[in-house]
This record gives sequence, structure tokens and C-alpha cells, in this order.
Amino acid sequence: MVASIYPDYPPALTSEQSDYLFSNVKDWSILNGLAVRPSSSFVSEKIDPSRSLAVTAPVTLFPSLFPRACFQEARAIQTAYNELYACIANDEDWLGEVVKELAEVDDYISNLWNVHQAVKKEGYVQVLQNCSLPLQDYMVHKDPSKPDAEPEIKQVEFNTIASSFGGLSAKVSALHKHLLSISAYPPTTPSLISDTSLPPNPSIASISRGIATAHKAYGRSKNNTQLPLCTLFIVQDPENNAFDQQALATNLLTDHSVLTFRLPFSAVLSHTSIPADSPSRPLIYTPPHSPRTPYEVTTLYFRAGYSPAEYNSPESWKGRLHLERSAAIKCPSILTHLAGSKKIQQILATPSSPHLSHFLSSTSSAACINRIRNTFAAIYPLDDTAEGKHAISIATDTENARGYVLKPQREGGGNNIYELKIPPFIKSLGDNSKKYRGYILMNLIEPPALRNSVFRNGEVRSGEVIGELGVYGVCLWRHCRSEKGEREILENWEAGHLLRTKGRESEEGGVAAGFGAVDSVCLIDV
Amino acid sequence: MVASIYPDYPPALTSEQSDYLFSNVKDWSILNGLAVRPSSSFVSEKIDPSRSLAVTAPVTLFPSLFPRACFQEARAIQTAYNELYACIANDEDWLGEVVKELAEVDDYISNLWNVHQAVKKEGYVQVLQNCSLPLQDYMVHKDPSKPDAEPEIKQVEFNTIASSFGGLSAKVSALHKHLLSISAYPPTTPSLISDTSLPPNPSIASISRGIATAHKAYGRSKNNTQLPLCTLFIVQDPENNAFDQQALATNLLTDHSVLTFRLPFSAVLSHTSIPADSPSRPLIYTPPHSPRTPYEVTTLYFRAGYSPAEYNSPESWKGRLHLERSAAIKCPSILTHLAGSKKIQQILATPSSPHLSHFLSSTSSAACINRIRNTFAAIYPLDDTAEGKHAISIATDTENARGYVLKPQREGGGNNIYELKIPPFIKSLGDNSKKYRGYILMNLIEPPALRNSVFRNGEVRSGEVIGELGVYGVCLWRHCRSEKGEREILENWEAGHLLRTKGRESEEGGVAAGFGAVDSVCLIDV
Repeated sequence: MVASIYPDYPPALTSEQSDYLFSNVKDWSILNGLAVRPSSSFVSEKIDPSRSLAVTAPVTLFPSLFPRACFQEARAIQTAYNELYACIANDEDWLGEVVKELAEVDDYISNLWNVHQAVKKEGYVQVLQNCSLPLQDYMVHKDPSKPDAEPEIKQVEFNTIASSFGGLSAKVSALHKHLLSISAYPPTTPSLISDTSLPPNPSIASISRGIATAHKAYGRSKNNTQLPLCTLFIVQDPENNAFDQQALATNLLTDHSVLTFRLPFSAVLSHTSIPADSPSRPLIYTPPHSPRTPYEVTTLYFRAGYSPAEYNSPESWKGRLHLERSAAIKCPSILTHLAGSKKIQQILATPSSPHLSHFLSSTSSAACINRIRNTFAAIYPLDDTAEGKHAISIATDTENARGYVLKPQREGGGNNIYELKIPPFIKSLGDNSKKYRGYILMNLIEPPALRNSVFRNGEVRSGEVIGELGVYGVCLWRHCRSEKGEREILENWEAGHLLRTKGRESEEGGVAAGFGAVDSVCLIDV
Repeated sequence: MVASIYPDYPPALTSEQSDYLFSNVKDWSILNGLAVRPSSSFVSEKIDPSRSLAVTAPVTLFPSLFPRACFQEARAIQTAYNELYACIANDEDWLGEVVKELAEVDDYISNLWNVHQAVKKEGYVQVLQNCSLPLQDYMVHKDPSKPDAEPEIKQVEFNTIASSFGGLSAKVSALHKHLLSISAYPPTTPSLISDTSLPPNPSIASISRGIATAHKAYGRSKNNTQLPLCTLFIVQDPENNAFDQQALATNLLTDHSVLTFRLPFSAVLSHTSIPADSPSRPLIYTPPHSPRTPYEVTTLYFRAGYSPAEYNSPESWKGRLHLERSAAIKCPSILTHLAGSKKIQQILATPSSPHLSHFLSSTSSAACINRIRNTFAAIYPLDDTAEGKHAISIATDTENARGYVLKPQREGGGNNIYELKIPPFIKSLGDNSKKYRGYILMNLIEPPALRNSVFRNGEVRSGEVIGELGVYGVCLWRHCRSEKGEREILENWEAGHLLRTKGRESEEGGVAAGFGAVDSVCLIDV
């Protein structure tokens, strides 16, 4: 554990202060739709067969302290990151090489690539690529061996598909502001929670505007007879976190007059169709509740289909192919989905890698590229290269493994292995060094110690926590398939942020599973 | 049962349409805080000890058909009704006579009067009277004996204290508009649910503005050392319907920068004080969570203290007296509370009564007074007057009692007796005609047949329903205590509406108990 760089926080509360804070969190959250459906372990199906109950989404009672400079840097480089995804997604040759290398260990990536190849062979009908909400995830890192070092942000992962909590995050920021305004946070010396330390968070409005922008860019109905237009959210079923998505759908309707429907990923083939006689391949959605009024889908927003476990039958892959070949703007397309894969992150973050400069040098300054590179935690392959050999020597050494984490290369490939558990794990793989290639070694990010209280499932738990800052981005570009990698960026903006906080004792797990919560930042100059 | 004057409604749904409608009602309501805490019969305390769960407030799935002319009339006369309350509340001599008459049968009314007398003796320090949200309750009445008669509104009761659901009603109107906008209501011929048939309902904003107006009218702190100002909601504990109230409190904060605290009626004496040395008697509230920052209460908004059952100890009356003698603007004051009592309604609605004209003739036209009178259902005392004797003859006759309801005069005095159950009930009172005086006889209002579906406690139930339209009003006036009844109206407006709908089979019960729900109006020309 790294010593805290922050002042004593959060302030201690009397039981009356605690009651006041807690009861206002409970009431404000429900009043403002900051909610989830309770898990079946909290409320059994027998008690609530119609799934009508709701409970406050997992939230922290206090905004977590976060270095102001780190927050500003993460926001500032988001549009350059958006550009980077667009570049990678447009470079099919390069992506093809990566996939070839992975094919042996990762069926999922191969299958995604095959979907793209199949559509490419037939010919894409949609050149607009949308990536409303890639989410850059960072942790604050403070090198434990350098006490005087400034804290900095280090990339944990980047997500180009199904980034969640954008519909809740703005509300948590508003919740913490509300608690401040009703004096639910007792004054501290120095004053930490204040109007200037709680930045605005437009995630709902900004992400919705991203989807609406794609919707508008689609243009008129491409069907032989003009159809009404809609956007379609591809979702999981059941979905406890539907309110997160519904906040975006409601905003699309009220602020942009865009109608949204929700469709489980598993029901794609039964409820959507592409007319066989239409060369422009409009995606037609026929809502079960209104079979005589089909809609044409302008924009597909994936909140499902991102995990290998969801592709459990040939039908799943057929469904994904069906969507990909349609004229709908995909958020994301297969190529953008691939651009967000773990493997790409690993390639970019390998210290000697030339790829980052390769992608950005035509559009970004060397200084900007450097700022992005600075957010990478060093990632090493376990292979025959010089770097790979060095990494293997670390991973097999009980002393040196401290400060590292071993991660599987596969998407959804199981749990990470931390520090001193690495050498015995490597040993358990046996002598076959080919098996090593399924893993990468990464510098462990060391976030400074922090405390907070998390309210979830009706219970408050306090303790040491780790926060992960996500920055949302919206990017819409035109893929000019005639020349390799050529593109035209039409829209590109930073779209709000997300702080996810989890208990320090749990080494993995997000807000939706385990002891994690949606948080907001309380900026501090450290 | 009266035959329906409406077209066939609501439309029949396929199971897919029903699923779509229901799932959108469930999600939109939680997303927008249209919620209540579940009752303990739905979710036991054992499952949710922190009372964190919430569920959609009882709502109808469809807006209920309502005659447009009736709706417009109810809204149009609200400000005259507000004026009427102000007149009655200001006429202490007249109120004193009523109380004297009631003293034998109603301790509660006597006790309220005693509180007023005690403060009067000491001298009132606050001349501003606020009645943010009296609620006029009407039913649509269609005389069954006159098939060609137009439907008309008839007053059920008027409430000058603790009118609820203003924080939910605007949301139900918005819910039904949302369902229309996402095509959850299948088209009908003729088209019934449309943009023009669903009127706007500003209850939240308008009622909050009423409370904020009182807050502002209070002026600066009257304490020796200036204190921060707040409004105080006097509430029940526990309160399942807190979100209704919180919607107003949140609006007060966001739209008017007015801070609100909630205090259980039973805790008034322990958490508020009036400095003994201050002739202006500011009401000081010391929040338990912030004992070093006391607040001065500008406005007391009663959401408790309205029912005789809440005054179960001498402390309760002491608490009410304590609040009444303070400088806070009471919403309502004791006199306004009394103006809304059942007995006053009875006196005004007795057909030969001169009181309505007496109160309004100086400010309202004869036509306006007549419009108000037309909303009264005839009410008869059971006493020695000519009208009283006639009423007794009806109430004891098994044939004639049809079409009437017998109501106790006491506030909170138990259940009503309907139609043919009246004669045996009168018989059970024995020969002592003095006991008759505890009751009044009233023409039964005959609302036209209507169907709807109610969603409450996670279940949907459909059937025949009765709707009760409430219209909220805001009135702020200055009581010039020097002369009898003199007053100056500072603010007076109609403040949105409420349609409460309940199953027809249940003869009593509101939305919070039994098979009732918050509804919205779908206007129709009949």
C-alpha cells in the first residue's frame, strides 16, 4: 500500500450527520433515477416477480479526492485518443496482422475479424463510423520508489464498445453537488468539498448528443418505401442496469426527438431484417408491439455483444454479421470494436513500440503523442524478443515480480495474477513457453491510499478504495475505403467522465459486480 | 352504476403491446422519481432494513377520460375558491360560532380552536397567511335520472392542509405524455389520447413557487443575531410517500435557492425553539446534523398534523401551539386549517345557506358565486330545522335513501354509510335524535362508468374505476386583525391538478391505501 498523498478524508461524521447524509442520498437518488434493479440476492424473484422494485445504484457517499492536474490531463487528451481509435479502426492491414498473430490463442478476435472480412467481401454500404463513447480508463499512479514524483494518470484499458454508466455518472456528480448544497458535508479545514472542487459532468447530454449526431448523419430512409427512423440499443437480457441506458434514451427523445428501442442481442435475427432486394441494405426493426409500423434503424448502440461469453452459438455470430452488413451506423463497427481489444493496448504500450507514432504522426504533434504515451503503463509480451525474455525473467523471479500484474491476452480470458502470485503461476504452465504467449506482464499501477463509503444493496460499507477515472469521447468519421486508412473526422469531442470506485481489498470487479460504486471527483491540488 | 358517457376505452392491447407499455411505465417512473417506498406487506423490513428500495408509485397505465368542460370549469374557479378560504379563515366570529356548535361532538375541532384562542390572547406576530395548496376535490357527476344532462363537477371535499401528490401528479401527466410519444398507446378511432387531449400539469413547479413566495414574503431574519433561513416540512414518520414531498423540496432548492428541512410532527418540540427574549418570536430549527448552525424557519409546510389520530398526547397539542405562536408563515395557520373542515363544507353546501354569498359578495360577481355553488352536492343536517326533518325522513326510508351517503360530522370520524345501508344504521343509533347530529346526509355523486388499469405494488389490476379531480391553489394574504375579516390578497393562482383514480368496488380509500392510483386526464368533449 502506498501512503496517502491526500489530507485526512472523508471527514468523520457524528451519527446524526451520518443519518442526514444517508437519508438524503437514499431519497435524492430515487427522486432522480440514480437507480438499478436490485439483484436477486437482495430481493428474490418470489417477492418481486414483475421486477418492479428499484434501489439506489451503487454510489459513494462522498466524492473521492482526485488530483486536479491528472483530471485535466485526462480530459485534455481525449480528442487525440478518439483520433487514435479512428486511425487504428481504419487500418485494416495492420489490424489483420494483429489478428493473425492472435488467431491461435483467441477465437473471439478471429471471429470478429471474420465478420468484417465477410462484409468487406460483399461490400460495406455504410462509410460513417461512429464511436459515441469510447471510454478511456485511468488510475492515478504515484511511483512508490520516488516520494517526490507528481501523481500521474496511467491507462488501465480503453473500451470502444458498451462503455457503461454514462447515464448514471452525471447523476452521481449532481448527487454530490446536491449534498454539498444542503450542507450534508460538514465543513473541513482546509475546505475540500466546494463548488470549485466538484466539476460539472455532462455525460448524459453529451453522449446522447453523440448518438443523435450519428442518427442525423444517417440521412433519410434508404428503404424503397420511406420508413420512420429510430436508433436501436442492443442490450443484455435481463439487464439490472437499464436505467443507465434509459437515461440516454430519454435524453435522445426529449432533447433530440430521436426515438429509441431496446432489443436483446439474442433477439436480433428474429426482430430485424434487411430487405433482400435493397442494395442499400437498410436495417428494418419491427417492434413486437407495433407489427404494422416497422422502423429503419439509423444507429446501432451496442450495450451487449462485447464479451466472448455472449457469443455462445452460431446464431450469435450470424446476428452480429447481420447487423454489420446493414446500413445502420454501428456504434461501434467491428473494426472499431477490434481497435479497443486488449491486444491492441498491449502492442501500443510495449515500450519500444513504433505504432503510436505511426498512427498519430500525421495529425498530432510530437508533444501530444508524448502525452498519450505517458499515460501508458509499460506492457511486455512473454516471447522470444529481447523485451519478452526480460519480462519472463521478471515473471519467474519471486523477488522481482513485486510491482507487476500478469494478464491473459484473450478478451474475457479470466482473472489477472498479481505480484508474488505470478512466479508460481508461470511455473504451473509447465515448460512449454508457447503457453506464455497467452499472457502479458504489466507494471502494476499504484494508486494513492484513499478512503470512502460505498452504498450498495441497501448497505453502507466504508474502507480503503481505489478509483478508476474514465473519460467518454464521441467521434464520428467517414472511412474512405478506397485508400488504406484514409478518413475524415466529422465530429470529435470529450463527453464527460466517470469515476468508478471499488474496495481496495477486491483486486478485480466493476461496479455491477462486487463491492464497487459510481463516484465523482473532488479535485485537489497535490 | 351509471352507463358510460364515454367511448370504449382504454383500447384493448395485444400481449406484446401490453408488455411494451408495462415495461416503459416501470422504467420511466423509476428514471423520473415517480416512486414510493414499498409497503411492509410488499417488502418486509427483514429484507430491506435500511428502507432503500423503491417502487413505482401507484399509477394508472392510461390517462382517464375526463370531460373537457368539467376540467376547464374546475380550473377556472380555483382562484375564487382560494378567495373563499381566505374569507372564511379571516372571519373569526363566524368560525367561533361553528366551533361552538360542534364542541359537543368534535374535540379535535375544539382543540384546534383553543390553540388559535391561546395565540390570539398572546397576540399573533405573523399577519401573513399562506395556503399553498388547498386542494379542491371534485367528481364528475351525471344525474342518472336525466339522460340528456351535461356532466358537471361536484365537490367531494376541500383540503386546506397536507394536500398530497402534487409532487407526483405532474410526473404522472408527463409519464402518460411520454407513453404517447413512444407509441405505447395504440391508435384508436376516434383518436382519444393525443397531444391536445393531455393538458400540461405544472403542479410541482407551481406549488413550490407558492412556498417560495411565502418564504420571500417572510423577509429578513427576525432573530437578534441574523440566522440563515429555511422552510420546514412537518412530516409523518415513517413516510412512504416522501418522494412526493421531496420533489417539492428539490424544486425549492434548484429553482428558488430555498433550503428545506424535514421534521416529524412528533419531534417539533425537541428540535425547534422560540427565544424567550424575542418579541418577534422567530422559530429556530436546529438540525441534529448541524447543531452549531441553527436556522430560522420562514415557512411551515404541514404534511402531518392534519388527522385527529396524530394528536394522541398533550405534547402533540403543545407542539401545534408552539408552531402557531411563532413568526413562521404557516401553511396553513389554524384558522385556515379550520376553514377546510368537513363541517364548514357542510354549512356552505346546505341548500338554503346564505354563507357563500356572505363571504364572496364583496369580491365576486353573482355569476361567479353561482358557479361555485353549482359545484356543491346538496348537504343536509339531521336536525330540527325543516331541511333537517326532511333529511331524517329520507335517511330512515329504505326506498328514498338510494342516491345518498351519510357522513359523520367529525374529522377523521370513520367510514361513510352508503344508500340502502343508511336506514338500518340510523335505526342502530336508537331513538336519541341528538346522536343524529353527528352525521350529515349528502346527495351521492354519480360518476360515469370508466375503465382503467392500475399498477401498484408490482401488480397491474384492471377494472371499473372512479376518478376524483383535484385542483391545487396557492394563496398568500395579509390578515388585518384589527377589523373583522379584513384582508389583503397578495398572491392567488391555480397551481396544477391531480386526478386520483380508484377501483369502483372499493367505496373508500385513497391512493396511499387500497386499490387507488395517481392518474392524469385525457380530455374529451362529451
